[in-house]
Amino acid sequence: MTTTDKDVLDVHPDRLLPAEPGLRAIARELYHAVKDLPIISPHGHVPPQWLADDVPFTDPTSLLITPDHYINRLLHASGVSLADLGVNQPTFSAEQSRNAFRLLCQNWKAFRGTPMKFWFESELADVFGIDLVPSAGTADAIYDRIAEAIVTPEFRPRALYKRFNIEFIATTDDPADDLRHHIKLENDPTWEGKVAPTFRPDKYLEPATPAWNGLVDTLGALSGEDTGTYAGWVSAMENRRAFFKEHGAVSSDHSHRDAGMEKLDDAEAERLYAKARGGEITREEGDALRRDFMFQQARMASEDGLVMTLHPAVVRNHHTPSLELFGADVGGDIPMQVEFANALKPVLSAFGTAPNFQLVLFTIDETVYSRELAPLAGFYPSVYVGAPWWFIDEAEAIKRYRRAITGSAGFSRTSGFIDDTRAFLSIPARHDMNRRLDSGFLAELVADHRLTMDEALETAHDLVVTQPRKAFKL
Amino acid sequence: MTTTDKDVLDVHPDRLLPAEPGLRAIARELYHAVKDLPIISPHGHVPPQWLADDVPFTDPTSLLITPDHYINRLLHASGVSLADLGVNQPTFSAEQSRNAFRLLCQNWKAFRGTPMKFWFESELADVFGIDLVPSAGTADAIYDRIAEAIVTPEFRPRALYKRFNIEFIATTDDPADDLRHHIKLENDPTWEGKVAPTFRPDKYLEPATPAWNGLVDTLGALSGEDTGTYAGWVSAMENRRAFFKEHGAVSSDHSHRDAGMEKLDDAEAERLYAKARGGEITREEGDALRRDFMFQQARMASEDGLVMTLHPAVVRNHHTPSLELFGADVGGDIPMQVEFANALKPVLSAFGTAPNFQLVLFTIDETVYSRELAPLAGFYPSVYVGAPWWFIDEAEAIKRYRRAITGSAGFSRTSGFIDDTRAFLSIPARHDMNRRLDSGFLAELVADHRLTMDEALETAHDLVVTQPRKAFKL
Amino acid sequence: MTTTDKDVLDVHPDRLLPAEPGLRAIARELYHAVKDLPIISPHGHVPPQWLADDVPFTDPTSLLITPDHYINRLLHASGVSLADLGVNQPTFSAEQSRNAFRLLCQNWKAFRGTPMKFWFESELADVFGIDLVPSAGTADAIYDRIAEAIVTPEFRPRALYKRFNIEFIATTDDPADDLRHHIKLENDPTWEGKVAPTFRPDKYLEPATPAWNGLVDTLGALSGEDTGTYAGWVSAMENRRAFFKEHGAVSSDHSHRDAGMEKLDDAEAERLYAKARGGEITREEGDALRRDFMFQQARMASEDGLVMTLHPAVVRNHHTPSLELFGADVGGDIPMQVEFANALKPVLSAFGTAPNFQLVLFTIDETVYSRELAPLAGFYPSVYVGAPWWFIDEAEAIKRYRRAITGSAGFSRTSGFIDDTRAFLSIPARHDMNRRLDSGFLAELVADHRLTMDEALETAHDLVVTQPRKAFKL
Repeated sequence: MTTTDKDVLDVHPDRLLPAEPGLRAIARELYHAVKDLPIISPHGHVPPQWLADDVPFTDPTSLLITPDHYINRLLHASGVSLADLGVNQPTFSAEQSRNAFRLLCQNWKAFRGTPMKFWFESELADVFGIDLVPSAGTADAIYDRIAEAIVTPEFRPRALYKRFNIEFIATTDDPADDLRHHIKLENDPTWEGKVAPTFRPDKYLEPATPAWNGLVDTLGALSGEDTGTYAGWVSAMENRRAFFKEHGAVSSDHSHRDAGMEKLDDAEAERLYAKARGGEITREEGDALRRDFMFQQARMASEDGLVMTLHPAVVRNHHTPSLELFGADVGGDIPMQVEFANALKPVLSAFGTAPNFQLVLFTIDETVYSRELAPLAGFYPSVYVGAPWWFIDEAEAIKRYRRAITGSAGFSRTSGFIDDTRAFLSIPARHDMNRRLDSGFLAELVADHRLTMDEALETAHDLVVTQPRKAFKL
Repeated sequence: MTTTDKDVLDVHPDRLLPAEPGLRAIARELYHAVKDLPIISPHGHVPPQWLADDVPFTDPTSLLITPDHYINRLLHASGVSLADLGVNQPTFSAEQSRNAFRLLCQNWKAFRGTPMKFWFESELADVFGIDLVPSAGTADAIYDRIAEAIVTPEFRPRALYKRFNIEFIATTDDPADDLRHHIKLENDPTWEGKVAPTFRPDKYLEPATPAWNGLVDTLGALSGEDTGTYAGWVSAMENRRAFFKEHGAVSSDHSHRDAGMEKLDDAEAERLYAKARGGEITREEGDALRRDFMFQQARMASEDGLVMTLHPAVVRNHHTPSLELFGADVGGDIPMQVEFANALKPVLSAFGTAPNFQLVLFTIDETVYSRELAPLAGFYPSVYVGAPWWFIDEAEAIKRYRRAITGSAGFSRTSGFIDDTRAFLSIPARHDMNRRLDSGFLAELVADHRLTMDEALETAHDLVVTQPRKAFKL
Repeated sequence: MTTTDKDVLDVHPDRLLPAEPGLRAIARELYHAVKDLPIISPHGHVPPQWLADDVPFTDPTSLLITPDHYINRLLHASGVSLADLGVNQPTFSAEQSRNAFRLLCQNWKAFRGTPMKFWFESELADVFGIDLVPSAGTADAIYDRIAEAIVTPEFRPRALYKRFNIEFIATTDDPADDLRHHIKLENDPTWEGKVAPTFRPDKYLEPATPAWNGLVDTLGALSGEDTGTYAGWVSAMENRRAFFKEHGAVSSDHSHRDAGMEKLDDAEAERLYAKARGGEITREEGDALRRDFMFQQARMASEDGLVMTLHPAVVRNHHTPSLELFGADVGGDIPMQVEFANALKPVLSAFGTAPNFQLVLFTIDETVYSRELAPLAGFYPSVYVGAPWWFIDEAEAIKRYRRAITGSAGFSRTSGFIDDTRAFLSIPARHDMNRRLDSGFLAELVADHRLTMDEALETAHDLVVTQPRKAFKL
């Protein structure tokens, strides 16, 4: 290819910092004070096997496109078929892989103004040292350079972990998982990092779904508990949580349609549990029992000390044909309205001031930030406001987040940044983006004399180091 | 009158561009690249007769005040009676007209910070060449100068259409309309513009309202279908849609209390239809049948290719006494909360990837932008996020719109600007306002290095030209 | 103590003004034009006894910490027990008081970015002339200097009222209150200020609560009306409203879980009233009757002319154990979603254009600003959009408020600033904060040529003087 000026990728050192020169100078100073601090990633979806086995990545598409539903979904909206991106394609040839990469590059324009552009261009420049803007004309050259890089030892997962300066990373795991990869890492004297599992029991808490009975059987078998009774289900859960904790877990993660956690009286809980085990529970009863299950999880958290994180209110698999063709988690999820104030009253009256209990509340419904989350975290010592997540882990929403919650909750009641990603190579860019944006927000508070520069410098550091450690008990 | 400095209207060339000098320079360059592009107006309420018959406007008040519910409502809130503004006054003397104009000018202060000030002052300066700030002291002079202008040939509707550089404009029309004005324009060899009808069947889709049976009778008569059965209603609708399409329609527009479109099973639909035809349907049943009707409209859209636009969730005629005295559409409508994610799941599972189907989603409830609309448009190739509308077609909300949706949906999933107005003379000012604000937003992305200037220039052009053409299949 | 640079409190004259130099220059000019105008405080919670009896404050903690739930709640979230702050402690020693102050100063970091930091540091600097940043090291010195000051005559409530340049202040009072403090002030020839009571009947309008019957008995006894019937309840209310009005009240204030006001038919209202008096009303019936009571309050307001203010939708006493230990109003309240458009349709159809009726709508749910409140106030001459309140009376939310409502409602449909506080010493800082922020917003409109400087200067003045007078009929 012959490159032109337009092909040259300019990854500016001041990107995402405020434009106004006075603010930028302050923000730059704050950002430079935190940009090289280690990455703490207490919630995410990187496969632990990558680090346990340290196998090389195979090709640019299966690394950067196929599993990344941020990329997939906007290409799909642009008219690209998910099949052509490799989604749920048991066989996908080298030529198909190259073609998928071309589809991304040809449609690069669709990503303007999105965080995917920031992350991907940062990955090209900072991880691969590639200075080409993705386009139809540059697709093959970029593909080839990535393909060449990832077969080298420097691009093995463990080498990248070190290069990315990761201090702690959590994966997300099924309660029935044997955590073999985590155990392998624990037992590997050459491994100096920290990869913690996260207990994610969603499916075991939805008694009105068809898969539930089988899952609960498995849970019983694994834990040696009789899950024929509710008491057995509780013991099995406690057993698996203890197993996870033993292998480094610091938190459990939960995502249901609503944020409810509310105790049923014992007889009603028993009755619904029996009905669910008989496969006869209704949707409404299933919701009530699930809220009781969640109350139990909170009670367990107050005892075993695993931090509880909530990611509620997403319409999963919104497009039925895509679910049928490509499976879950392919980008077809849509956020919906959420309510926390009433939903959490029972559980916070029970455990809100319990010494061992911590609850990090995430939302994709931004309306709750100033209305519910900041007021909750501004009163309960157990509650933290989680960082913007998924659809709102982008520049403008991250700015809104700090603006919405700081007045009621300050900085000390926030979780620190959460990348929540399965895109391992994007982790540095995601944390970097957030450090830039938090620096910009703090710069505003310095510039209008709400904070002194000393206060802002300390706060910038706290947001990267102290807050995630505190919120996740690291 | 003797004018003072305060009377001189200053319509600054940089108005609505960012204040910070660096941003302003970038924004100005972007704005200058698009400010003279033709106007594409794919949704609005200008009476087609104005262009078909090209008759002169009669007086300043009936042109600029009486039919404009943006102006009416804030004057009403300021204590002015709607009757004194000419609303629903079969006779309204020249003196009354002049007096209404005085009431506007005396209360001009109430419009500070609103878009009505921007539009009206732009109209005065750019359309009429008047350099007076409205006030009690200038009211008569302004009135007289407008009155003098509008009797001249330069102010006939067709002359203004040309002068405004309009390339395409859509009206909003009843399914029973004979489209005589559109047909007259079609058949007029001297007419070089494009005025398309829009199919707006709301009233025919609300089976629990008193007027419904009569409307459906009319529809049957016009289409030659037997609307005694649901099948006949469907055929009649298809027939009228085809008629509209034949005369240039590119879209159908829909406004109901919620965004629901959901198929009933056929027997239930037939049963409810029969009940409705018998005048015995309940409000709840009427809502269910209306959602089924809407599903049918979507199905038709997937076949005939008319773009479907949704403007849901307004409490119409909020003030009952005003409805009784002055009729509908006089400014007494109030937005309410809306839900899209669950409401649209059935219809998007059915038609979300259908090649011919396009759905533009408008909202006055801004909470859905980042939570639902951008995620929907960022996955479904059929869905576009509509521009801010009605109460939020103003500077600050337009800025929030881009900030709320771009992270998930980028620019390519948006509708382009929609003026949605019956105020013909404000159309250039409305499009101009939006071009200024989009230039300002893009300037921010350039200034913090999210976009290169080349990318921003192309995007600015796309937003004015490419996006409306794509979203409305022009 | 030995102070260092970090201990020196810098209260910058330009704080909270926009950072960009051009904007700041404009904002500074606007701010300087209004900063010394008198304080009008039409809604708040200062105890009238303070001004009636003019007794000295006793100690820094009971003045600045114990009763201030803004301060309490964030300290509680930071792990401090409410008991250690003196909340609901019948005896609290001098040593405990000093210790509470130390707890505040040690945790001062938690307040970064919150308005409490702005208010408290402004109080230290501007009210007490203290130039120390609160910290563990400075706590005792600050405590001592405040303790020394408040025993002097200059710090008596009436001296501060004068020094703060307060023109009007309203308290919040129970309908059964004998208003003795207000009457004492009325009859005191040496008192030149204005302290008006506010009629706050919430508890008397919740018939499903255990306390209701006793309260209604008291009301009957006080008013000489037979509250055994609904008609008697109405007469008793009218009687007490008249008593409040006679002693200077300009408004009634209302806070319930929703904003509903809707008339029942008379027989149903009588039936529910009788049931409630018999102690047998259900929660749902209680809500319906409460909405009817509220409709009655609106009807009374349209007759006696007391302005009606609404502060709805808070989950009171969210944390049951704190309620049991410390009582109500200790910081454990959490906002929740609110709906106005449908809720207010009946009452605004009845009284929305009544000449004597005025309704000021406050919200902590910001979503309703652009969607419901600005449209309502932009149509109804009786409706005003109240200033940001409680959790959102802080810099970023105040900026959002103007940005969200001005497009539909302009400035003339807003209430002016409301401090809503029981923290007497923070009143100047709260009004000052708002004047700074409104100046900043107006500066933006000048800088992008939406307003001339003359228009902005007049508007800045209106917001401080004209709007509260108009909204509260002062």
